[in-house]
Amino acid sequence: MSEPLILDGAATAKAIRAEVAARATKLKEAHGITPGLAAVLAGDNPASVTYVSMKRKACAKAGITSFEHVFGADATQEEVLACIHQLNADPNVHGILVQHPMPKGLDEDEILATVDPAKDVDGIGRASLGDLVLGHPSFVSCTPQGMMTLLKRYGIDPAGKHAVVIGRSVILGKPMAIALLNANATVTICHSKTQNLAELTRQADILVAAVGRPELITGEMLKPGAVVLDAGYNRVEGRGHDVGDCHFESCAAVASAITPVPGGVGPMTIATLLEQTVAAAERSVGK
Amino acid sequence: MSEPLILDGAATAKAIRAEVAARATKLKEAHGITPGLAAVLAGDNPASVTYVSMKRKACAKAGITSFEHVFGADATQEEVLACIHQLNADPNVHGILVQHPMPKGLDEDEILATVDPAKDVDGIGRASLGDLVLGHPSFVSCTPQGMMTLLKRYGIDPAGKHAVVIGRSVILGKPMAIALLNANATVTICHSKTQNLAELTRQADILVAAVGRPELITGEMLKPGAVVLDAGYNRVEGRGHDVGDCHFESCAAVASAITPVPGGVGPMTIATLLEQTVAAAERSVGK
Repeated sequence: MSEPLILDGAATAKAIRAEVAARATKLKEAHGITPGLAAVLAGDNPASVTYVSMKRKACAKAGITSFEHVFGADATQEEVLACIHQLNADPNVHGILVQHPMPKGLDEDEILATVDPAKDVDGIGRASLGDLVLGHPSFVSCTPQGMMTLLKRYGIDPAGKHAVVIGRSVILGKPMAIALLNANATVTICHSKTQNLAELTRQADILVAAVGRPELITGEMLKPGAVVLDAGYNRVEGRGHDVGDCHFESCAAVASAITPVPGGVGPMTIATLLEQTVAAAERSVGK
Repeated sequence: MSEPLILDGAATAKAIRAEVAARATKLKEAHGITPGLAAVLAGDNPASVTYVSMKRKACAKAGITSFEHVFGADATQEEVLACIHQLNADPNVHGILVQHPMPKGLDEDEILATVDPAKDVDGIGRASLGDLVLGHPSFVSCTPQGMMTLLKRYGIDPAGKHAVVIGRSVILGKPMAIALLNANATVTICHSKTQNLAELTRQADILVAAVGRPELITGEMLKPGAVVLDAGYNRVEGRGHDVGDCHFESCAAVASAITPVPGGVGPMTIATLLEQTVAAAERSVGK
């Protein structure tokens, strides 16, 4: 096999962030609107704190105002809901990101369902998920939407292809499967209860690994020429960087196109969050 | 092969309707509540008129009060929305069924999204669909939920099985695929853009045909021992009754279990609607 096309998420995300900054400038000049993204955080989950900090920096570079609402681990449901209602009503806030998991004692489902769908730029509220099933315009969970954008920007059309998605989480596998279906792929969703995983992955024209198991997918599990999207980022002792769900070397030897880890799917998540925030701000014009 | 098990939807639906009637009686005796189902109809789509009439009779037998709100084809969006709001607020109405398709000129999506999710016994509002994706308790579109009930009552557990769903409509294929995924099946969704359909159907432990093409699926497209659920009901000239999406004789020769048409999936739809209405009434107790 010749070398596969490397789907460069870092470069694509950089281009998207520049586009977002240009759109933010245009909104400011034409309508006096500065896009605003509010993060709601409760407790001190280190991954959430890191993500919010990355988001803050990325917003600043893209001309998006960051708002942060940080609650202690002992926050009450009423306090958090009151904050969401206030953000829903705030015209300076166009996107609302609720960091999850929230501490036990909070009803995360109710909190997520309270976010105005027009501001649900993280795409994980029930209305956004329902709109995705309906095929209506909606904000989609940022990592799957980022993968769809990668496919699009590299000219890979899922229509008529067999896409196999491994993993069925609500933020990754399920919305990715529905988005691929909406893009006219034939879609198979595999998970921990799947028998004969390799038989299914070998049928994939497009393989999406979103399962959180380091190097689960190896080259011999792929169809030659497959497009491989690896949403895994697993900490593995003794390895210098995060490890994907795919064994890169053996998969790259078989695939026609593949995302590296890091620098593949990962950077697309925040870029997509920014893109959906500026889109929400654009849609707010004239409302 | 021995004769397949016939999944008798007519008998199962009859049993469910009797259970619903018993639950309605209990609600009346214990809480003074009579379950109520409101149908909202606009225009004179003959299929909708027929369905509403069947529903009215079935409700009467099951101890459920029917309400009908019939608008002309020239109804305005405001009129229909006002009706939905009134039904949402009406404590005597536990389920709301919006007949679709609605006439052009009405924004059906907005109307469906306005139905209180707690009363969306038809399961096609965006909140209900989102809850289905989330794996939360929700009302599911009645035909797919009826098929899931058939599987359950015949002791067929989808967990670990490969289910292949043909068709991706919002009322049939998509919610069926998600429901099967939630029940731990590996799920493949096929549709008009699918290449090599037979290669995929031959992998199905459970095959769901929901595509509206008479006798598209023949026995040689099945894996021996497959469970076949046929949601098709196609009018075919010269045939005495509706014809399924599966060629019954050849499929029955290969399948381990199969739904006939008629008398299979069809009767489960209204039975499920009644079941979800009485469930909504039960959940309203104490609210």
